[in-house]
Amino acid sequence: MHDDSSNPIPGWQKQDLPPMLTRRFEFESYGMTRQFLDAVAKLSEEAALYPNLSFGKTYVSVTIDSDGKKIGPDAVSLAQKIDSLVGQKNQSPG
Amino acid sequence: MHDDSSNPIPGWQKQDLPPMLTRRFEFESYGMTRQFLDAVAKLSEEAALYPNLSFGKTYVSVTIDSDGKKIGPDAVSLAQKIDSLVGQKNQSPG
Repeated sequence: MHDDSSNPIPGWQKQDLPPMLTRRFEFESYGMTRQFLDAVAKLSEEAALYPNLSFGKTYVSVTIDSDGKKIGPDAVSLAQKIDSLVGQKNQSPG
Repeated sequence: MHDDSSNPIPGWQKQDLPPMLTRRFEFESYGMTRQFLDAVAKLSEEAALYPNLSFGKTYVSVTIDSDGKKIGPDAVSLAQKIDSLVGQKNQSPG
């Protein structure tokens, strides 16, 4: 067993036990929060992957788990699509 | 200071520190979960009270807090309206 904890996606936290990818997004208004939630719902249905979403008026925490299995390419792909909803502003690789 | 932990709403958990009302709802499908979430969003906007919602494919946990203040009638009223969305099936007072 080698260390496989490299982080596949900038901005997301990867946890190995139980396996999950998680990221928190903040918004300026409830309207923007709702827009984001609706868009994530659409992506979830397309991917047939349903993250756990926790949200309040101006934030959304997304947790993609995989029922105890290793985080697969489908989970990473969904995370990347969710990132693309908010543009690149939160991702500034040097 | 007297014990004020009486539960104002059947089916909801009331917590005093920090003050919050919380209840978990389960659904048979993602479609029903989404319907419920949309209806809760509408009620939230009407009440200008934004609970923390945590959801997955077939469940929603609603937590109404009050920024550290005592749970007031507006929070109780919102909880009751949220209950009414799912009908009376989860509430069977003898």
